[in-house]
Amino acid sequence: MFNSSSDRLVTKLREWISSAPAGAQLPSTRELVAEYEISPVTVQKALRTLISQGLVESRPGIGTFVRSVPVTRPNDYAWQTAALGTPRNHLPQVHPTQRAFPNDVIALHSGYPDHELLPQRLVKSAFARIARTESVLQRTEAAGLPELQAWFASELNEHLMPGLGAPTARDVVILPGSQSGLGSIFRALVGEGEPMLIESPTYWGAIMAASQVGVTLIPVPAGPHGPDTEELDRAFERTGARAFYAHPNFANPTGAQWPATVAERVLEIVKARGAFLIEDDWAKDFGISTESSPLAARDDTGHVVYLRSLTKSVSPAVRVAGLIARGPARDRILADNQAQSMYVSGPLQAVALDVVTQPGWGTHLRSLRTQLANRRDQLIGALDRHVPQAHLQSVPSGGLNLWVQLPDGTNLRQLERDCESRRLAIAAGASWFPAEESGQFLRLNYSGPNPGAFDEGARILGEALNIQWG
Amino acid sequence: MFNSSSDRLVTKLREWISSAPAGAQLPSTRELVAEYEISPVTVQKALRTLISQGLVESRPGIGTFVRSVPVTRPNDYAWQTAALGTPRNHLPQVHPTQRAFPNDVIALHSGYPDHELLPQRLVKSAFARIARTESVLQRTEAAGLPELQAWFASELNEHLMPGLGAPTARDVVILPGSQSGLGSIFRALVGEGEPMLIESPTYWGAIMAASQVGVTLIPVPAGPHGPDTEELDRAFERTGARAFYAHPNFANPTGAQWPATVAERVLEIVKARGAFLIEDDWAKDFGISTESSPLAARDDTGHVVYLRSLTKSVSPAVRVAGLIARGPARDRILADNQAQSMYVSGPLQAVALDVVTQPGWGTHLRSLRTQLANRRDQLIGALDRHVPQAHLQSVPSGGLNLWVQLPDGTNLRQLERDCESRRLAIAAGASWFPAEESGQFLRLNYSGPNPGAFDEGARILGEALNIQWG
Repeated sequence: MFNSSSDRLVTKLREWISSAPAGAQLPSTRELVAEYEISPVTVQKALRTLISQGLVESRPGIGTFVRSVPVTRPNDYAWQTAALGTPRNHLPQVHPTQRAFPNDVIALHSGYPDHELLPQRLVKSAFARIARTESVLQRTEAAGLPELQAWFASELNEHLMPGLGAPTARDVVILPGSQSGLGSIFRALVGEGEPMLIESPTYWGAIMAASQVGVTLIPVPAGPHGPDTEELDRAFERTGARAFYAHPNFANPTGAQWPATVAERVLEIVKARGAFLIEDDWAKDFGISTESSPLAARDDTGHVVYLRSLTKSVSPAVRVAGLIARGPARDRILADNQAQSMYVSGPLQAVALDVVTQPGWGTHLRSLRTQLANRRDQLIGALDRHVPQAHLQSVPSGGLNLWVQLPDGTNLRQLERDCESRRLAIAAGASWFPAEESGQFLRLNYSGPNPGAFDEGARILGEALNIQWG
Repeated sequence: MFNSSSDRLVTKLREWISSAPAGAQLPSTRELVAEYEISPVTVQKALRTLISQGLVESRPGIGTFVRSVPVTRPNDYAWQTAALGTPRNHLPQVHPTQRAFPNDVIALHSGYPDHELLPQRLVKSAFARIARTESVLQRTEAAGLPELQAWFASELNEHLMPGLGAPTARDVVILPGSQSGLGSIFRALVGEGEPMLIESPTYWGAIMAASQVGVTLIPVPAGPHGPDTEELDRAFERTGARAFYAHPNFANPTGAQWPATVAERVLEIVKARGAFLIEDDWAKDFGISTESSPLAARDDTGHVVYLRSLTKSVSPAVRVAGLIARGPARDRILADNQAQSMYVSGPLQAVALDVVTQPGWGTHLRSLRTQLANRRDQLIGALDRHVPQAHLQSVPSGGLNLWVQLPDGTNLRQLERDCESRRLAIAAGASWFPAEESGQFLRLNYSGPNPGAFDEGARILGEALNIQWG
C-alpha cells in the first residue's frame, strides 16, 4: 500500500536478479544511489527486503550477491496439524469487504469511505502538530486521554434527554478501534458459551468478534424500522440472554433508523429483562437526511453500553473509539481491554482529539452530508436505470450503504465472479447474517472511490444478472 | 498526562466555580481568550470538559453557567450484579507496575524505560515525516506494512544458523503491541481450558493474557540458567500440552539468558513433543554484556513462534510488534488478531520502520547499552551498600530489571506501603508467578527516571526492611 521509492527499487532489482546468474554481484550501494537518485538508507531498505526474500545474500565488506542456491526445499509443517487441532471458530483470513483491488476496478464492496470524504487537511495538520509534542514518547493511562474521554461524554450529552444524569468523562473508555471494543464488550458482558441477541442482518465484524469470544448468537429479525420487538422479548425470555447488540441509527447493512416508538420499546424490554443494550453508533458522523439519535442519551441506569468509533470518519489510520458505560460494566470492560491491549497509542488519541475540536470539523461534517446524499442518490438512480430486478427496501437516511435484495435463486457467488471479471467489486449479503441469509442481498457502498463510475457499475451488475436470468 | 493549556484553564475555572454561587454566569469565551491568551478552540475544549463533568451548563446564545442543581443523585447499578455474574477470571484494574506516581517519587516499580533512554529525536522526526505522507489517511493490510514485515524477517535472519531456511516477510505478522499478540497466540495455538507450559516466574502481562483466554497455566521453574529441562519434559508428558511460553534472552523478571546447551535441549524437547515454543524476545534491543540470541534463528520447522515488540525500545506511544511464525500457525494467529483488531495503524508502522532504518538507530542502541550497564551497576552498588539482606541471584547480562530475593517471611505488602510513604515505588514479585510465589522477591527496574536517586532509593528500601527485621 505504500509504494515507496524502496519498493520501486525492489521491483527493479528483482527484474535484474531474474535474468542474472547465481552468484552475480549486485551494483554497489553507491552505484544504486547514483543511478536511481535515492538515499543510501532507501537502498539499504531495498537490499534488506531482497535478503529476507531469500533472493540475495550479503557478504559483509564485499557486497551483495544473487543467492547461489535458491531456497527451494519446502518445509514440512504437517506436525502442526496435530498441535493446532481443528479451529474452535471459523475466522476469515481476509473478509470480502477488506479485499484490495486495482484502481480500475469499480469498488462498491468495501466498508470504508474514500479519501476524498475524509478531513484530509485536518488529519495531516493534526499529525504535524502532535509530532512536535511529548505525546509521541509517552504511555497513556489505560482508560485513555482525559480530554478525549471528556469529548466523547460531551458529544453524547448533546443528545441527553432532560432530567437524566449526564455521563461523565470517567464513564468513557478509549479503545484502539471498535473491533477491539466489541471483543472486550462481548467477553466482559456475555462470555464464552453464553447467549447474546443480535439484529439480523448486522455488521459482520460484530459477528466475527462474537464468534472469536465463543458467544452464542441469537438472531432477531430487523428490517427498515429496526428489530421486531415481539421477537426480541420472546428471545430474551426463551434464552435468558442478558445482552442485545444493535445499531439503532443507520444500521449496517440495512440503513435502518429506529423510530422513537421502537427505541422506547426496546429500552423497556431491555430494562425489564435486566439486560444490556450494546449500542454500536458506528455512523454517528454519517447522518444524511436525519441525525443519529443515540439510545444511550435516553438512559442513565447503565442499561445502554455505547460504542462510537472515529476510524471511519476521521481516518482509517487513526484507530480510536470511545466506549461509554456506567456502573461495574464499565470497569469490567476496561479490565478486559487492558488485558488485551494495555493502552491506546497517545499520539493517535491526540490526533483524534485535535481533529474533532477544530472549527473545520463541523464544516467538514456539513460538506460530507451533502456529498453522501449526492452519492447515495446517484447510486440509487443508477440501479433504477440498469438493475430493475434490484429491490431497495428503504432509502437510508444515513450511513454509507445500500442494502438491495435480488430475486430469489440468484447465485450470488457466480454474480460476484461475473462482476469481478468485468471490473466491478460487490459484496454478497451472507456475511451480514449471523445464521442463514433470509434472501439474496447485496451491500453496495456509495462512499467508495469515483462516484462518477456508479452508472457504469450498475450497468455491469445488470449485465451480470442478465447472464443468470436472461 | 498532557497538561495542555485547556487543562490549565479547566483547573483555573474549577477554582472559580468552587467559590461561585449556583447559577453564576462564567466569563464569555472572548473574555477568557483575552485573559489567558489562548485560542477560542482551547476555551471551548475547557468548557466542554466542565460541562461533561457536570459543573457548568451551556445555554445556547446566552452563555455558560454554574450548574444550579449539582448532580448528587447516585445511580443504582445494582441490577448489573445479576447481569454480569461473577467474573471468569481476575483481571486487575491497574497493575502495580502501571501505576503513575508524582515526579518526586523514586520509581523502581515500572516496566518501561525512561524518556532519556528512548531515541527521542528519531521518533519525533519520524512522526514529522510521516505526517506529510498519505499513510495518515490509509488503511493497511491485516498482516502489516510489507517493508516492516521484511525488516522483522531480516533482523531475525542476522542470527540464522547456517543451513536453515530463512523466514521471509510473508512469515511476519505486524501486531498492535505484544500484549495483543500474546492474546492472539494463546487463543490460536492453545485455546480456552487447554494447558500451556510457562516459565515461573515470568512476565505478568503474559499471565494476564493467558488468564483472559482461559488457558490453564502449567508453571515450569526457571532460574538464572533458564528452565529446568527435566521438569519441562515431564510437564509436557504429564499434561499433553502443545505449547511453552518462554523468554530465552534476558528473561523478565529474572534477567536469565539461556546457555546454548539449555536452548538446544529445549528445542529438542519441544520438537519431540510436537509442540510450539512461544519465544517472547521482549528485550532484543536491551543487551548489555551479551546480545540477544533468538531460538527462532535455530529452527526452520515452525516449532518456534517468535514475538518481538518495539514499544519499549522505540517509544511506548508506538504500539507495534512483529510476530514470526511459519506454517498454518501463522495463518491461525493472523486470523485471530484480525478478528480482534482488524489491522494496525499505518502511521505507527511507518514511524517504527522509519526509526529502525535510520543510521541513528544503531548509534542509539550502542549508547543505550552503555547507559543500561551504568544504571544496572549503579543500582546493584546501591543495594550492596544499603540493603545487605537483598540477594541478587545473578547479574543480568541484558534487560531492564534486577530480581532480588528478600528474607523469607518478609511482608511485601507492608514493605511496599512503607516504601511508598517514604516516596519510593517498588513492585513485589507475586505478579510474576503464575501460581504461588516461590519466595519473597522484588523486581527493581533500573531504566526508570533519575538514576541519580538510586542510592537514595536503596537507602529507603533498607530502612523499610529494617522496620520489619529490626
